[in-house]
Amino acid sequence: MKNADTYIDANIDRFVEEFFDLLRIQSISTDPAYAQHVQDAASWVAARMEQAGLTAEVIPTDGHPLVMGRHEAGPDAPTLLVYAHYDVQPADPIDEWHSPPFEPEIRDGILYARGAADDKAQVILQIAAAEAALATGGLPVNLILLFEGEEEAGSESLEPYVAQNADSLAPDHVVIADSLMFKPDTPSLIFGMRGIAYFEVEVRSADQDLHSGQYGGAVPNPAHVLARIIASFYDDEGRVTIEGFYDDVADAPPGAREKWATIGYDEEAYQRTAGGAHLVGEEGFATHERLWIRPCLDVNGMISGYTGPGSKTVLPGVASAKVSCRLVPDQDPELIAKAMHAHVAALAPEGVTVTVRTTQKNPAWRAEPTGDLYEAGAAALEAVYGVEPVRVCHGGSLPIARQFADTLTPSVAVMGFAVPGANMHAPNEQLPITQVEKGAKAMVRVYKGLAERG
Amino acid sequence: MKNADTYIDANIDRFVEEFFDLLRIQSISTDPAYAQHVQDAASWVAARMEQAGLTAEVIPTDGHPLVMGRHEAGPDAPTLLVYAHYDVQPADPIDEWHSPPFEPEIRDGILYARGAADDKAQVILQIAAAEAALATGGLPVNLILLFEGEEEAGSESLEPYVAQNADSLAPDHVVIADSLMFKPDTPSLIFGMRGIAYFEVEVRSADQDLHSGQYGGAVPNPAHVLARIIASFYDDEGRVTIEGFYDDVADAPPGAREKWATIGYDEEAYQRTAGGAHLVGEEGFATHERLWIRPCLDVNGMISGYTGPGSKTVLPGVASAKVSCRLVPDQDPELIAKAMHAHVAALAPEGVTVTVRTTQKNPAWRAEPTGDLYEAGAAALEAVYGVEPVRVCHGGSLPIARQFADTLTPSVAVMGFAVPGANMHAPNEQLPITQVEKGAKAMVRVYKGLAERG
Repeated sequence: MKNADTYIDANIDRFVEEFFDLLRIQSISTDPAYAQHVQDAASWVAARMEQAGLTAEVIPTDGHPLVMGRHEAGPDAPTLLVYAHYDVQPADPIDEWHSPPFEPEIRDGILYARGAADDKAQVILQIAAAEAALATGGLPVNLILLFEGEEEAGSESLEPYVAQNADSLAPDHVVIADSLMFKPDTPSLIFGMRGIAYFEVEVRSADQDLHSGQYGGAVPNPAHVLARIIASFYDDEGRVTIEGFYDDVADAPPGAREKWATIGYDEEAYQRTAGGAHLVGEEGFATHERLWIRPCLDVNGMISGYTGPGSKTVLPGVASAKVSCRLVPDQDPELIAKAMHAHVAALAPEGVTVTVRTTQKNPAWRAEPTGDLYEAGAAALEAVYGVEPVRVCHGGSLPIARQFADTLTPSVAVMGFAVPGANMHAPNEQLPITQVEKGAKAMVRVYKGLAERG
Repeated sequence: MKNADTYIDANIDRFVEEFFDLLRIQSISTDPAYAQHVQDAASWVAARMEQAGLTAEVIPTDGHPLVMGRHEAGPDAPTLLVYAHYDVQPADPIDEWHSPPFEPEIRDGILYARGAADDKAQVILQIAAAEAALATGGLPVNLILLFEGEEEAGSESLEPYVAQNADSLAPDHVVIADSLMFKPDTPSLIFGMRGIAYFEVEVRSADQDLHSGQYGGAVPNPAHVLARIIASFYDDEGRVTIEGFYDDVADAPPGAREKWATIGYDEEAYQRTAGGAHLVGEEGFATHERLWIRPCLDVNGMISGYTGPGSKTVLPGVASAKVSCRLVPDQDPELIAKAMHAHVAALAPEGVTVTVRTTQKNPAWRAEPTGDLYEAGAAALEAVYGVEPVRVCHGGSLPIARQFADTLTPSVAVMGFAVPGANMHAPNEQLPITQVEKGAKAMVRVYKGLAERG
């Protein structure tokens, strides 16, 4: 391990330079205009894997390609699959960035760039870890680095690929390298993520915008209808009113709420990361519980009529919203989608057309946080950070966690090296640059820990 | 009159060409980026007035300039002030236009362009009428053409100008040339317009957008709050719920509702102009009554979060809406604005900042539809169109109508030559091109009728 640590220390400047190269590629998967950039990022990652000593390939899909790098340690060695993604979210609103999102910049030890935390740091440090292990005496596990380019766009191609290649992948353990530590100095092993159901709601009354003086008071206003629909999603206590929404919500794992009450969840630090937002939510649950074990519903965007400068007197012909639910075990996204459609349909008044389109339906994932992977992971993280990692859940969604658990192995852990306040999906996404080195060192220890155990 | 008609017929092709020149100038007053275009339009109009034989001047203001053209007929002649505006609404959504908004095009006798109906047709035909009268034996009234460049942006400069120059203007009658006929073949004299109070409502929870997985369920969503505010503006019967909103609403003029019931208001034709929208509104009132004598409230635009293609999982930090009320006599815009502020403030929950900004506050206007101006106007319109004009109200707002009546003369009539279905403020704004000729001929008769009467 000393050797690998020394190798990482000696090469860290190069790793960071390579990280910058990857961050400069605008691999925005959700916007078709950036498809070539996503492709460029895939090629870059495969070349970098080869350079590290892995056998790499770019795997075409119906969407953006997968990139896989493999190392064979032998039939008796355990097989570890590490998942990450090389695509990123759009960067808008661009004018709220303090430095350009695709020109990475380090200020006071913090790297700022779109993808710095989510998830290109993991791409780089996972490759660096494999390179360091191989360059200093071997990699004692069969390693599969499986990186996708569509995580921010629904992971549509990964699911069929994993389903069709379950036998050739056949990992004993899966590390999902796409998450945050618990605190800046406290690593975490995450054993549960929320699912997501995403909808587009549109209200249409006319095939064009109208003059609000000539029509106001005599025709429906789709913005009013949409507002009533959105307002109806919540009651006065902040609970979601869609019928049956909470019916299948599972309790927290036994003892988890009590344990979590002792780990020092820092609400103030969390609030500081929230851009000044206050903390509010469902009665009877602490903030971390609202995120980890309770579902929610949020408008992600809405638009209608004239939104430019000045006062335009239009009566909009259409209003639309993007709305998503974060789901927990054992909510069924199919049932939630059905209930959403029924809820909205019941609110559609005469004279307007209301449509709901479901664009994502992914169930939550929750593992048993024990066994070789959790033990090896905990030991590795403690060795590097000097702190016992916490075993927690997370409010975000990683649909492939659930799929890996269902089709490959139940031994799945989420272990990422971003830190709270990373501004993922927001302007000024950031990462303490030392996380690249620490993450790489931790991963080398995970290889060793798994090889020793299994 | 024969002479003036002959002159107009002989010169109509030139008038239409000049109309095209004016339409090509993108005089969008509400967007500062187009300020030079508005200035160019003012210069063009003044030059055209001089060419017609009027004394013209461009009058600078704190905003866009006024253009005035005058003719002195003598101290015994009545003075007629004709108001129009040479600015236009923005053209978006651009992609819903069938031909470019600032490249006028006639198809099947219909002219399509931004400003075709609102209000550049009136600018051209009023100048053409003055030119025809002067070129064929004289103009028997003291004529003041007062055209502004800020009608679509709140008419901020016109009001102080009129207030400060009431003595030098001192008209006996005012024609406001900015409106529609009753039907394509039935002209109208409009004696009432609704007022307007325009607001910008903003809900802010954080100084940036957040990740909906990391924060959803634990922080407020400003789009939800805004939706609740908007939904609260109406009750289930479609009545505005702002406290006291209907308290000062005056009854219709005596006999007006009964008279209006006989003039053949064509709901089906109105609905055809509404882009397929259904007709709905306040119980107990016909469509034309909802527009002419009842107030309303409409969202003109709203926006929050991510509204581009695909599914971005943001939790918005801010949501905003443009909201306007159309007002009738005797609603006081000051009281309505106060009630709006109080209504919204009462709905602001803990954890978000809700602000309301009032951007326009103009009371409704309603005249007595009798006397020299209404008689001369009715005779002129009947002579040209062969149909007795109806005396009606209108749902739109012309704040200067009220000001003219309050500061200059109660003898104010709105008389414009756009026709229903003009798509004012919307894509594919249009005008039957023969309205230029007919409007000019009618105005020459108005001059004569006023001179004879007064």
